[in-house]
Amino acid sequence: MKVDFIIQNTFVMTMEGNGVGMIENGAIAIKGNTIEAVGTTDEIRRDYSAEEVINGENKLVMPGLIDAHIHTGIGILRGVSQDIHNWMQEGLWPFMKHVTPEDNVKGSMMNIIEGIKAGTTTFCDYDGNMNDIVENYVMVGARARVAELVNEIPNDIGDVPVGELYPFHSEIGERKLQNNIRLIENWHGAENGRITCMLGPHGPDMMSLELMQEMKGLAEMYDTKLHMHVAQGDREIDQMIKRYGKRSIAFLDDIGYLNDRLLAVHLTEATKEETQLVAKRGASMINCSGSIGIIDGIVPPILEFLEAGGVAALGSDQAPGNNCNNMFNEMKFVSILNKAKRQDPSVFPAHLSLRLATIESAKAIGLADEVGSLRAGKKADLLLVDLQEPSLSPVITDPIRNIVPNLVYSAKGSEVESVMIDGQFIMRDKQLLTVNEKEVIAIAQEAANSISEKAKGDIHPNSPLIKRMEAGEL
Amino acid sequence: MKVDFIIQNTFVMTMEGNGVGMIENGAIAIKGNTIEAVGTTDEIRRDYSAEEVINGENKLVMPGLIDAHIHTGIGILRGVSQDIHNWMQEGLWPFMKHVTPEDNVKGSMMNIIEGIKAGTTTFCDYDGNMNDIVENYVMVGARARVAELVNEIPNDIGDVPVGELYPFHSEIGERKLQNNIRLIENWHGAENGRITCMLGPHGPDMMSLELMQEMKGLAEMYDTKLHMHVAQGDREIDQMIKRYGKRSIAFLDDIGYLNDRLLAVHLTEATKEETQLVAKRGASMINCSGSIGIIDGIVPPILEFLEAGGVAALGSDQAPGNNCNNMFNEMKFVSILNKAKRQDPSVFPAHLSLRLATIESAKAIGLADEVGSLRAGKKADLLLVDLQEPSLSPVITDPIRNIVPNLVYSAKGSEVESVMIDGQFIMRDKQLLTVNEKEVIAIAQEAANSISEKAKGDIHPNSPLIKRMEAGEL
Repeated sequence: MKVDFIIQNTFVMTMEGNGVGMIENGAIAIKGNTIEAVGTTDEIRRDYSAEEVINGENKLVMPGLIDAHIHTGIGILRGVSQDIHNWMQEGLWPFMKHVTPEDNVKGSMMNIIEGIKAGTTTFCDYDGNMNDIVENYVMVGARARVAELVNEIPNDIGDVPVGELYPFHSEIGERKLQNNIRLIENWHGAENGRITCMLGPHGPDMMSLELMQEMKGLAEMYDTKLHMHVAQGDREIDQMIKRYGKRSIAFLDDIGYLNDRLLAVHLTEATKEETQLVAKRGASMINCSGSIGIIDGIVPPILEFLEAGGVAALGSDQAPGNNCNNMFNEMKFVSILNKAKRQDPSVFPAHLSLRLATIESAKAIGLADEVGSLRAGKKADLLLVDLQEPSLSPVITDPIRNIVPNLVYSAKGSEVESVMIDGQFIMRDKQLLTVNEKEVIAIAQEAANSISEKAKGDIHPNSPLIKRMEAGEL
Repeated sequence: MKVDFIIQNTFVMTMEGNGVGMIENGAIAIKGNTIEAVGTTDEIRRDYSAEEVINGENKLVMPGLIDAHIHTGIGILRGVSQDIHNWMQEGLWPFMKHVTPEDNVKGSMMNIIEGIKAGTTTFCDYDGNMNDIVENYVMVGARARVAELVNEIPNDIGDVPVGELYPFHSEIGERKLQNNIRLIENWHGAENGRITCMLGPHGPDMMSLELMQEMKGLAEMYDTKLHMHVAQGDREIDQMIKRYGKRSIAFLDDIGYLNDRLLAVHLTEATKEETQLVAKRGASMINCSGSIGIIDGIVPPILEFLEAGGVAALGSDQAPGNNCNNMFNEMKFVSILNKAKRQDPSVFPAHLSLRLATIESAKAIGLADEVGSLRAGKKADLLLVDLQEPSLSPVITDPIRNIVPNLVYSAKGSEVESVMIDGQFIMRDKQLLTVNEKEVIAIAQEAANSISEKAKGDIHPNSPLIKRMEAGEL
């Protein structure tokens, strides 16, 4: 049979089975946007010929990585607020209040490029203004599973003093909900299924019970998931106790939110029992090690969640906090931070991190029939990784294979040589093919300059970040 | 005045003063192997002309990074032993026993290239066979401060059951000491001072008191430092108590080792009081976050050491454990692991990590007059970093500058575009100029294949790593 591409004489890490499903001297055949077959080079060459045969010697073919939680809309504010308490209020907000919808889109594109260069092929983007942002994914050719951030709080919420209850405005919630519905109506299943949509309640503390229930009904109606921050910080827990007399997870259990439609993001403040309850109810956990480490100095309870039988995924969150959107970074951090948390080097082995960025993540977000592993019939979302980069060399296969630990603990993301999404090369030999990288960066830089100009008067002279500037530390 | 190079219209992060010493629209003038002047572009262009003027727009000039503790000689075994207890005995040793001196040199070169590509310009290499390895640094043109690993234990020490006292053989110690002396005699100050040497006692548990005292005397005689593992693991502490009835640091204090000649590496098992004592006595601490996180699941007590007034530095240790030798990785890990350890996002700010990989490190290893910051009269060891890489974009300078947090929390190392050491470009526009990268990798791969062949029979079928192989996890 004739296919479009065969990549052969290569390591194929399928992520099928319970481990990583490594095939040595493997090959993969791709036709249209679909994986036609995976096997040894001999098997594939016996059964298939191709328009283009790619020599994969000294390379690794692996599934594209899934970033299960990313806010690309604020990517433009990378790195403005680190090493402080109250990250959002003290550092981010003076800038964020000046970010326009156009800035969201420009920064998002820069963020998407960053992800693709580091091997991300599926983006679970969760942000305001998603009806515009989604067009970036259409243009680039990436897979996206997007949600509009819905809440009932005014845009100047960053000015509400810590400790006071957020005011809810139903007309704000209604407008944002309509944006989420419009997103779903216009884009769910678009681009041959490459774009799908979710509901995006911002968090249990950011909207009324009524709106939460309405969104739950919509998720059922559209048969999709709810992507939501849960127990993401002590401020959220404080709001929930003040408003409902309950912590977030008990409240969500009461209102029927804890089930397999829910992607519970962060669980930073969840107790062991709460974490176990979320897992037991069948909701998924999205773990963002980099951002929660930097913003809160906390290692979220993902090990407890997995031990309770939950399905989990990894996310890079957002550049103002993390400061990178690179799934290799997340894989490395989740392993090492959890080893340190347990003081046990044997916990969170490398293959587990890889699974949480591929097949387990696909299960969590509801795309396991399409992506997350390399298997005949799934979409052709895959990476070619250069194993001759010094950071991945040498390759040892016997008696122990060193590829998996080196991918997780050594790879930086820049070892990704080529990226295929939905059967199309989006990056080849480190060149992006569907967007002009330099132009995207220049456009984002221009937008950042304008935000910076407006933010000048809005940062308090006593801010710890201004002190750092004055001390020459930034 | 005419100089060789001017890099202008750029951000210059000098690392002078107590912060990062950032100059916007800065420039640097280089003549021979020396920094002639640093200042604003206007100042430099007023006073200097150059053979070559480099436009540094959208780039950052910063000091080359110092890797204060690296074993390049075992780089060839990258990633063979992760996610287990007894890393050395269970995983590494079956391979390590087959590594020849030639393999050391081949793997070392691969490791050095990895470091340079990620911005390391000074390598404190600490290994056996250093008289051969040192020639790699001569060839590549990197700065090195090398020590021979001296101990009195036989090569098959990996076979000694955990818990038994190591046998000491004075003839082994004598031979290795002679190698260290030969290293110093032949290489200390060589290559116009680019190569310098230290004494390298392997650890207080690995040699007799007499040999330790002899090496201390030699360090004084040669007026150089002692590079030594201290409190690096529970096995060391167990050996010390069994042999001397004392823990490592009390023992070292008794024999006069704790002073400013000592680079105390790891301190993994040091108590708070022991850590404070090391700082108080003026010894330096080398902290290896990546390797100790992966091998032991421990965050070493560097914050306590710094709080006690100590001078500390960062090291990447070795590829079989870490698994990378990339100082950007170390800067990121030391900050985030310590935030998580203290559960406080404000500890270990980004500029501190940068200092510990540059100027503080230079102080620790005794090269502060030559490297670690950009100042007239110091050696021209510097990096050009591309700020238009998506991971470092956009650049915001006002009211908060985001370059420093993004360098530490987002940069992967692959943003380093050019590397100058001792006034010579070693890498330019990501091309290595003094070695053939592909050839180095191919030579290391060939050596690894031969080690792998020999190691087959030496790994126990009940090894947890073999179990992982069988489970398809590797």
